[in-house]
Amino acid sequence: MQISLSPEKVIKVTQPLSQRGGTSCTIERIVPLADAVEGDLSFLREKKFSDDLTSTGASIVFVPEDCPVEPGENQLFLYFENPSVGLARLCSMLQKMLRPRPVPGVHPTAVIAQGCRIPESVTVGPYCIIEDGCTIGEDSVLEAHVFIGRNSSLGEGCRLMPQVTVMDGTRLGDRVALHSGVVIGSDGFGYDSDGSGHSKIPQIGGVVIGDDVEIGAGTTIDRARFSDTVIGEGTKIDNLVQVGHNVRIGRHCILCAQVGIAGSTVLGDFVILGGQVGIAGHLTLGSGVQAGAQSGIGRNLEPKSYVFGSPAVPYMLRQKIIVLQKRLPDLFRRVDKIEADLEKAFEKGSESE
Amino acid sequence: MQISLSPEKVIKVTQPLSQRGGTSCTIERIVPLADAVEGDLSFLREKKFSDDLTSTGASIVFVPEDCPVEPGENQLFLYFENPSVGLARLCSMLQKMLRPRPVPGVHPTAVIAQGCRIPESVTVGPYCIIEDGCTIGEDSVLEAHVFIGRNSSLGEGCRLMPQVTVMDGTRLGDRVALHSGVVIGSDGFGYDSDGSGHSKIPQIGGVVIGDDVEIGAGTTIDRARFSDTVIGEGTKIDNLVQVGHNVRIGRHCILCAQVGIAGSTVLGDFVILGGQVGIAGHLTLGSGVQAGAQSGIGRNLEPKSYVFGSPAVPYMLRQKIIVLQKRLPDLFRRVDKIEADLEKAFEKGSESE
Amino acid sequence: MQISLSPEKVIKVTQPLSQRGGTSCTIERIVPLADAVEGDLSFLREKKFSDDLTSTGASIVFVPEDCPVEPGENQLFLYFENPSVGLARLCSMLQKMLRPRPVPGVHPTAVIAQGCRIPESVTVGPYCIIEDGCTIGEDSVLEAHVFIGRNSSLGEGCRLMPQVTVMDGTRLGDRVALHSGVVIGSDGFGYDSDGSGHSKIPQIGGVVIGDDVEIGAGTTIDRARFSDTVIGEGTKIDNLVQVGHNVRIGRHCILCAQVGIAGSTVLGDFVILGGQVGIAGHLTLGSGVQAGAQSGIGRNLEPKSYVFGSPAVPYMLRQKIIVLQKRLPDLFRRVDKIEADLEKAFEKGSESE
Repeated sequence: MQISLSPEKVIKVTQPLSQRGGTSCTIERIVPLADAVEGDLSFLREKKFSDDLTSTGASIVFVPEDCPVEPGENQLFLYFENPSVGLARLCSMLQKMLRPRPVPGVHPTAVIAQGCRIPESVTVGPYCIIEDGCTIGEDSVLEAHVFIGRNSSLGEGCRLMPQVTVMDGTRLGDRVALHSGVVIGSDGFGYDSDGSGHSKIPQIGGVVIGDDVEIGAGTTIDRARFSDTVIGEGTKIDNLVQVGHNVRIGRHCILCAQVGIAGSTVLGDFVILGGQVGIAGHLTLGSGVQAGAQSGIGRNLEPKSYVFGSPAVPYMLRQKIIVLQKRLPDLFRRVDKIEADLEKAFEKGSESE
Repeated sequence: MQISLSPEKVIKVTQPLSQRGGTSCTIERIVPLADAVEGDLSFLREKKFSDDLTSTGASIVFVPEDCPVEPGENQLFLYFENPSVGLARLCSMLQKMLRPRPVPGVHPTAVIAQGCRIPESVTVGPYCIIEDGCTIGEDSVLEAHVFIGRNSSLGEGCRLMPQVTVMDGTRLGDRVALHSGVVIGSDGFGYDSDGSGHSKIPQIGGVVIGDDVEIGAGTTIDRARFSDTVIGEGTKIDNLVQVGHNVRIGRHCILCAQVGIAGSTVLGDFVILGGQVGIAGHLTLGSGVQAGAQSGIGRNLEPKSYVFGSPAVPYMLRQKIIVLQKRLPDLFRRVDKIEADLEKAFEKGSESE
Repeated sequence: MQISLSPEKVIKVTQPLSQRGGTSCTIERIVPLADAVEGDLSFLREKKFSDDLTSTGASIVFVPEDCPVEPGENQLFLYFENPSVGLARLCSMLQKMLRPRPVPGVHPTAVIAQGCRIPESVTVGPYCIIEDGCTIGEDSVLEAHVFIGRNSSLGEGCRLMPQVTVMDGTRLGDRVALHSGVVIGSDGFGYDSDGSGHSKIPQIGGVVIGDDVEIGAGTTIDRARFSDTVIGEGTKIDNLVQVGHNVRIGRHCILCAQVGIAGSTVLGDFVILGGQVGIAGHLTLGSGVQAGAQSGIGRNLEPKSYVFGSPAVPYMLRQKIIVLQKRLPDLFRRVDKIEADLEKAFEKGSESE
């Protein structure tokens, strides 16, 4: 990231509530407070970390309104209700500058079947392949090496990064973002097994992805056996996540990296799954369920359950188990001692009888 | 999935044992019973779920022979020994219709080295690359963006989906299916380490994959240090699985999503590993071993062992531990009470002495 | 792997300390001792496994200096201080033979933006895409279907395998190896959330990868929110690993397959993480930390900590907990008995009072 911003430009873009101090430096980097030197912009997340301010070399710092520290020499403090929002404004502007939307148009090397509907506002990058019967919405961008299988449709303003695979019969809503290596619509994992082996159950369903869904690099989402695998509007999925066939994920869920969800499981809305969580098949998790990282979920969960552990139990119970497990060596010693004491006492007892 | 089937066509394709009722509806979807409305086809997996039948709006339902419920008005029930098999017949037919085999031939954009043997029955999609010395078996299909490295061979009827990478020196049997993003023959993870760092151990072996193996999206299988990493005939591997170098997997195994197997481990036949299972290196798991989801296996396992947990222990022991862990808070209280009671008793005892 | 080596050639390449016996066989395979037959080369890792030597059919065996077994008829033993080093010498030679460096030059199908600096010693394979403003170092190799985004730079002697994606603004050091399916510089997973959903936090930082880093197939490394995600010199990362935004990994670390590291976590040097380890965000792990497979790390760790389990605790404590967990059914029975005995004793006591 190479940037060059005057203090005036920073103020103009981020619109702070107020400012103190001043700097003559051009901003060339945005870095955490601890790493910041002259020419850097940084920010203080919360008042309670104010001590970090006194030693920072940053030329501009975004601080909360109630920040008690004064700017040093040649240092500019900009005050925000929420410094993170100020930073987001700055980064949005920089993003457009550093990573501009590609120019609309179809690269001459793209292989596009006849009968596809691709508006002029769409960008199709080099070596993309779009099979027959596909529809691409206005302003969508397909970066390089993207594959779109037959009879798929993309909404408006979608962004498919390089090396994305969208298999046949997939339907994406508007503003869907798919990062590199994502595979949508691979066959579900279903076989009829007997003593001689496993015969494949045909997987003829599709995948339907709602508006404003974002899916991280290398994530795989299988097509349904029949009907559809569904990802609800606004849901955000991190990298290397596995979503099995016929899974239905609600709206505005958060799935952290390396989560795995087995076939036919249903998630409500606003479900949050920590990294590496695994969920068995054919379950129902109510809206608002939260599961801590590495949890293993093998039962249905009521809405707003907060679970943790493998197998997952209520969060507070899990915390107790974690503490008590560490005290197991001590507990065994205590029980050993009790038994020894009792044996002695009973011996004594029988002697005295 | 857009379909349009008359009841007569459904009966012809699926060959039920018998039928009751009748419908004038054309079938346009296959969906679960609970979601089904007029124009839908659905099925009842087992007699015990018969209650679901009374409220379904499905126009055609596949039911088991002993189904006690009668069809409603304008509703057709088709009776099967196993409704799932009837559904498989229907879906197989639909699959051929919805996802037909691509036409044989080599796309003009494919880059194929001289000296490759590619029969006329083979399909090679756009932007595929086949390096020198490769042999492709009859009727195999390489979809778009597939890479096949030097001196590799594919058997007959293989299907490689878009964006598959097969590195040099790989040998695939007949009817092998590789889904998008699969990487076969990446370097094994081996280094000689000392205090100054890690120097790479050359990985010059290959990968050998048996007949009828299917490998899910994003799965990676490393080449051997020397000799071969081996996947046995009929084994099915789900998405995002990692198979380390020199691993040997037997025949007809099932590896669920996100399993990881470290280097040089050997699995027998018909081994079943749940999702996210991890297996350490240099182990031997006998034929018929089963491991529950998220298990961590650090020891050799006898044939037909059924294990669960991290670290994995016999399944029933693990179930007991899970139950007893939840009772740990109570156990600590009980031991506290015993100690208090004993202290009191002994005090009393010494007083009374 | 098809090889053909005379015994003289093997001796010349591997330079053993001494030799005994002799063979007339040409070497066609390198295999483990147990599998070796005539025409095979094998090796004995340590003297303590010498029994395996007496039954092997291998024509040439690399053995340690102190090996007590004599070669059989038509069998050649080569003696090394470390047989593994002898094997590495042989495999290095074979590697150059079996997997030669591609010829320098840019394939005519590569799409390269104007303004890129690509020396003549570089190889760019078919269907590679290099966007504008990129610099490639001398002797680097980009295999087929590689994507390099705008303003990225690669050092000298890098090797990017087929289907690698390097997003814009990435900087790779010298001799970096990226295996197939790797994604560098995907967006970090960051949103501002409220009751109505999640709004994306722009991710405008980059990724910086040090010299001699190797990254396994399918691994994903996210770009920083701002500043850089950093992988230190000499670090080796296995397949399907997830590295979150703003993570900083030190030098010479080893990350085994399917590890996940959440955002902003910092690792020191020579950290070793077993397979499927998960680390929460915003943590600091000191240099020399080691974590057993499937560990879940939720706290900062002092340098040289050796932890295990989910949640991770000191290794020896975890081993104790594992042993004691298996004895929980027995412990509950013991406590039941103690309570029963006490009840009986107290009853007796009250009777006798």
